[in-house]
Amino acid sequence: MNMHEKWMKHALKLAQKGRGFTSPNPMVGAVLVKNNRLIGEGYHPKFGDFHAEIEAIKNAGSEVKGSTLYVNLEPCGFHGKTPPCAKEIIKAGIKEVRIAMIDPNPRVNGNGVRILEEADVKVCVGALENEARQLNRGFISVVEENRPWITLKLAETVDGYIADVSGKSKWITSAEARNFVKEQRKIHDAIMVGMGTVFKDDPGLLPGETDGFIPYRVILDDVLNIPYRFKLVSDDFKKRTVVITSQKGKEKKVEQLQKNGVNVLQVNSDTLGWIQLYDAMKHLAEFGITSIYCEGGGQVAGSLIQSRLVDELQLFIAPKILGEGISSFSGFMKSLDSAIQLEWAEPRKLGPDILLRGTLK
Amino acid sequence: MNMHEKWMKHALKLAQKGRGFTSPNPMVGAVLVKNNRLIGEGYHPKFGDFHAEIEAIKNAGSEVKGSTLYVNLEPCGFHGKTPPCAKEIIKAGIKEVRIAMIDPNPRVNGNGVRILEEADVKVCVGALENEARQLNRGFISVVEENRPWITLKLAETVDGYIADVSGKSKWITSAEARNFVKEQRKIHDAIMVGMGTVFKDDPGLLPGETDGFIPYRVILDDVLNIPYRFKLVSDDFKKRTVVITSQKGKEKKVEQLQKNGVNVLQVNSDTLGWIQLYDAMKHLAEFGITSIYCEGGGQVAGSLIQSRLVDELQLFIAPKILGEGISSFSGFMKSLDSAIQLEWAEPRKLGPDILLRGTLK
Repeated sequence: MNMHEKWMKHALKLAQKGRGFTSPNPMVGAVLVKNNRLIGEGYHPKFGDFHAEIEAIKNAGSEVKGSTLYVNLEPCGFHGKTPPCAKEIIKAGIKEVRIAMIDPNPRVNGNGVRILEEADVKVCVGALENEARQLNRGFISVVEENRPWITLKLAETVDGYIADVSGKSKWITSAEARNFVKEQRKIHDAIMVGMGTVFKDDPGLLPGETDGFIPYRVILDDVLNIPYRFKLVSDDFKKRTVVITSQKGKEKKVEQLQKNGVNVLQVNSDTLGWIQLYDAMKHLAEFGITSIYCEGGGQVAGSLIQSRLVDELQLFIAPKILGEGISSFSGFMKSLDSAIQLEWAEPRKLGPDILLRGTLK
Repeated sequence: MNMHEKWMKHALKLAQKGRGFTSPNPMVGAVLVKNNRLIGEGYHPKFGDFHAEIEAIKNAGSEVKGSTLYVNLEPCGFHGKTPPCAKEIIKAGIKEVRIAMIDPNPRVNGNGVRILEEADVKVCVGALENEARQLNRGFISVVEENRPWITLKLAETVDGYIADVSGKSKWITSAEARNFVKEQRKIHDAIMVGMGTVFKDDPGLLPGETDGFIPYRVILDDVLNIPYRFKLVSDDFKKRTVVITSQKGKEKKVEQLQKNGVNVLQVNSDTLGWIQLYDAMKHLAEFGITSIYCEGGGQVAGSLIQSRLVDELQLFIAPKILGEGISSFSGFMKSLDSAIQLEWAEPRKLGPDILLRGTLK
């Protein structure tokens, strides 16, 4: 790792301090360096608050003049909730700016770089770009695709079943796998399940210990069937629950849930009256959710995959064989020639289970 | 790796030169060392031929006296097709014998060690024992379990299908996976398939380029349905084909196949008239086959797994999702509490696919 990557890595680390609170804004960290010495740092703490660059400039004080700025996202060039960072950078007398990635937001998208270069600030783009894109994949997805980044988690047996024929699925995987899932819940804006899972498990969908961040809990509930007593709409975190329903949703129940503090989003239905998933995802993006960790079941997994609404698949394979059971994906059928394609990352063992991660093509 | 392991590793490497030709005997390599210098080596080249130790003694010539012998299996202490090795070792004046594992064959099983120790030869057992057991797992299985070691290979999609609904399964996995399979065919005494696979693909089941060894090709054919024109019973290697059939087998067809040079084993049938798998495996062990690479399909895989006749599972997971298809195992159904259990080894990526290897509990 060279010197530039070292400082950029530090900026990326700072950026993550805002995790869970910046959406739909990106996570941004900034580092000011002079003579290879850190003189200031900052990060974007939460949506609407000051930007990382401004905080780093303040933090550096009088030393800022002639320094180099490392920031994981292109500084903005427009007046939003805060003044344009590019102009503040110029004003502070920073001589060089190193950026991991261009901001895909059409209001920036190279504007920040142009403003800096026009003021004779040296600009370099691309250090640790992959890491920066990975960190803000939710933000990027909303800007570029108009929907949140979607990670689909599945836990299945060797023969591809997510439950036995009786429907039992609890503890298909190990404690190690479940801990991994809890960590994943912390790095997505929302966790999502279908009503099959809700009825079966009445889950709380909470991460383990957190630093205060509770991800939204999204329920896909076509006909608004969820009983009021269920955890997701009655526990202490019900304000962090979003029920998505199609136009079939009963108005009275919508009102009652909202009165109880639960968020309800009514979205378009498809020809069969079911939730139109693209529209649901668009609504969730508008609601401020940039990344979703979907925990099934088979119906939701099948619908998302078939709609090409999965960006990453996280597949746990338990060391168990059932012979028969409930399939991991349901609702569609492909031939081998038209199969949905992935690209596997390196696999790993997680306790007694295997974790496979793949990106959808 | 210490000095002893270094020489034992060399003995194991020599042992493998006999691969494919020693069964039902084990593969054995022997190394003679004096003052940390190799003075002689040998291996058991084929069933019925001289033993590794004797060859190494011959190879060392007059230097043998006072040397140390490294051998991956306990030297025999009885008169079989050749004179007892333990006595030849004593006669040659070898002062120390290092053995990777005791020979589980009840005719040896510590006898060799006892004879050596009674003649004041120093004996040490256990260097690279795991590697030695892995190498001769077929031989050990026949001695201890009365049946060949069975490796089951499966290639499935993310959702656990070995073929799409039309039955198409060719090229579920990549060229890299297929090359791995060809290598595996070289290190098992036999390849085994069911009639479903035979009818669908008319496969040749040959390894890639070999050093002359062609594994047996075993077909599980309950009612002796195989057409004479099919590759396995008509190609140049038909003498290396074993058709297993239950008592339902038509006598005339048995005779004709045998006249054509094909091996036919008639085994017990279960109450439904199907091949009794335990009996089939016992017959194959008696035939001289110590290890089997089973390449499916789902029916055979299901029967073997359910009968607990699988030692290792090799599972390729292709980066493909079908939604529906033909299941990897068929013919049984377990609850999550009674699921068949495995233990995963470290997974790896093989081209675009994932290879999982597990041992059955």
